Amino acid sequence: MIFTFTDFGASGPYLGQVKAVLHRLAPGVPVIDLVADAPAFEPKSAAYLLAALIRELPDGAVVLAVVDPGVGGERKPVVVEAGGCRLVGPDNGLFEPAIRQAAKPRAWEIVWRPERLSATFHGRDLFAPIAARLAAGRTPTEAGCRAMAPPRRADWPDDLPSVVYIDHYGNAMTGTRAATLPPDALVAIGGVRLRSARTYGEVPAGAPFWYENSIGLVEFAVNGGRADQALPIAVGTEFERVPS
Amino acid sequence: MIFTFTDFGASGPYLGQVKAVLHRLAPGVPVIDLVADAPAFEPKSAAYLLAALIRELPDGAVVLAVVDPGVGGERKPVVVEAGGCRLVGPDNGLFEPAIRQAAKPRAWEIVWRPERLSATFHGRDLFAPIAARLAAGRTPTEAGCRAMAPPRRADWPDDLPSVVYIDHYGNAMTGTRAATLPPDALVAIGGVRLRSARTYGEVPAGAPFWYENSIGLVEFAVNGGRADQALPIAVGTEFERVPS
Amino acid sequence: MIFTFTDFGASGPYLGQVKAVLHRLAPGVPVIDLVADAPAFEPKSAAYLLAALIRELPDGAVVLAVVDPGVGGERKPVVVEAGGCRLVGPDNGLFEPAIRQAAKPRAWEIVWRPERLSATFHGRDLFAPIAARLAAGRTPTEAGCRAMAPPRRADWPDDLPSVVYIDHYGNAMTGTRAATLPPDALVAIGGVRLRSARTYGEVPAGAPFWYENSIGLVEFAVNGGRADQALPIAVGTEFERVPS
Repeated sequence: MIFTFTDFGASGPYLGQVKAVLHRLAPGVPVIDLVADAPAFEPKSAAYLLAALIRELPDGAVVLAVVDPGVGGERKPVVVEAGGCRLVGPDNGLFEPAIRQAAKPRAWEIVWRPERLSATFHGRDLFAPIAARLAAGRTPTEAGCRAMAPPRRADWPDDLPSVVYIDHYGNAMTGTRAATLPPDALVAIGGVRLRSARTYGEVPAGAPFWYENSIGLVEFAVNGGRADQALPIAVGTEFERVPS
Repeated sequence: MIFTFTDFGASGPYLGQVKAVLHRLAPGVPVIDLVADAPAFEPKSAAYLLAALIRELPDGAVVLAVVDPGVGGERKPVVVEAGGCRLVGPDNGLFEPAIRQAAKPRAWEIVWRPERLSATFHGRDLFAPIAARLAAGRTPTEAGCRAMAPPRRADWPDDLPSVVYIDHYGNAMTGTRAATLPPDALVAIGGVRLRSARTYGEVPAGAPFWYENSIGLVEFAVNGGRADQALPIAVGTEFERVPS
Repeated sequence: MIFTFTDFGASGPYLGQVKAVLHRLAPGVPVIDLVADAPAFEPKSAAYLLAALIRELPDGAVVLAVVDPGVGGERKPVVVEAGGCRLVGPDNGLFEPAIRQAAKPRAWEIVWRPERLSATFHGRDLFAPIAARLAAGRTPTEAGCRAMAPPRRADWPDDLPSVVYIDHYGNAMTGTRAATLPPDALVAIGGVRLRSARTYGEVPAGAPFWYENSIGLVEFAVNGGRADQALPIAVGTEFERVPS
């Protein structure tokens, strides 16, 4: 299976062009949009979301991951093996938390180049052909890659104590794994102190709280409401643990 | 074929995780997003939209239907057979109109539980595995279900005289089947009286009207404009038939 | 492969119903959403976007293209062969630039009619069955079509010097192929004069510019920002080349 994790949007012309390439080069392999609204221009926030999501994917999944404000610039195109998945995309930090959380991460630089490489759409022209070849059974080397040490961002934290994604319901996911906090920890975000709950029904309607979401991250939510309206938060807003 | 009918949003991380499960457990079965923007937190409105849509699906379709504000609470997970489809989701009224409109509805409680059941994402952990097993050819009993009487909401109406869904163009679908009104009925919504038309071109530009939409429901629209701006309406706004 | 190019929206109930038909009548053929947010009610703008996009599709692709404000009115349903693709949709100008740019365009009128043809959803009832038959290997004649001269809009230009689509990032695509301008042409839109660049990183952050986008069109963008906010533009805004 091939998954896409992008900031391309679900409606517009970009994902469809990528899938045309994937289906042509890896016929019969299912292609699933995992995320189409990753935080645009924010590879660091997107990176912590991606690391949490790949834990839910079947072993052997290929993930085409593109949040790439530097397209056309210097960053390298890479393949990373981590958490049972092969991740294909730009080396701009997007794979750092996945590498960090992996037992034996491996990496390759993509050295193959297509006949025509647009300046601004490497997702279609470079990453999709590589992802398709991997999904069709080739090794990274056979697909046009060269082994390298996994690229690292040594100064990035294991967990990011800030909002990395706001979903369709207004819930705010953070880059922090809930398992790193005590289940009853008190946290503060935007000047508001929040207790935890296990699910929505445990708190009064309209009350904000934090909980361990379905991919293991600390998430802010409101029972029957929108956390992004009840709290002064956006992608990037930091939170901290406070004494109870 | 498996269809999803959810309030998960088309862009975010939820549908992709559900499809990862469906493709893994029912390989080769097409998965189609039928609705990703069902009215959130509004299973009653969503229910009347769902009942109209399943009439358009091929016989034997499996529909994963999740509008589930009570996830993690007491409502039962169920499978319902109605209108040639098998519907998988929460017993919170979402299947009531489909059951009501079916000749011989049947139902099963889902008694199987996965090893890991998240508190807030039964769509991925509970409903998707069951939907996949049904689509792969198992009976409800083989899939981990136990026959029960179809769950009913005796106090719900056959047709809901209110807006249940506002589409991308601003058109407002109601929960009322157009066949229950005379074709030339006059109706009032938000203090505005509206005549009917067969299609957009029959009314002047900018004029609101009602018509039988492509799934058989009473719908409010404006030729060349948005009904949700021309009329004071939202999901839940009631309409009534008035004397002509 | 079948591609959809529509103004139906990615989330709502329309694309799913279309795909139910396509998968039923052309089992095993991949269906890819190319564009779900084509400019609604604007077949002329959509037409120039479509002509650019089909150059990216694999030979033999079938494209179900529906931007059809006149549904239920007089316009003919047609199949057009152009640029290695077969396009299925309304004869309202949507295929004019594709026909114009094709070496040997061909066309057919769809004379087949389904048993039930809704007044407002020909995408599902008429165009999807024809697209599926073509994708499953039938010729247009076998699929229920009759050869006709390619329908033309003689007064339309080869390239449209106005915005035809604004994407998810706020970038504004025009209906003009970049190859028709010198690479260093100066253009003006909304009273602002813009130079060209090859990619985002070449201009200062926050600066608007124009460039040849990944489908060969003149596009307005802002490095690290939104062109639709930095410039006074919307779908339909005209631009012109100015002396440098």
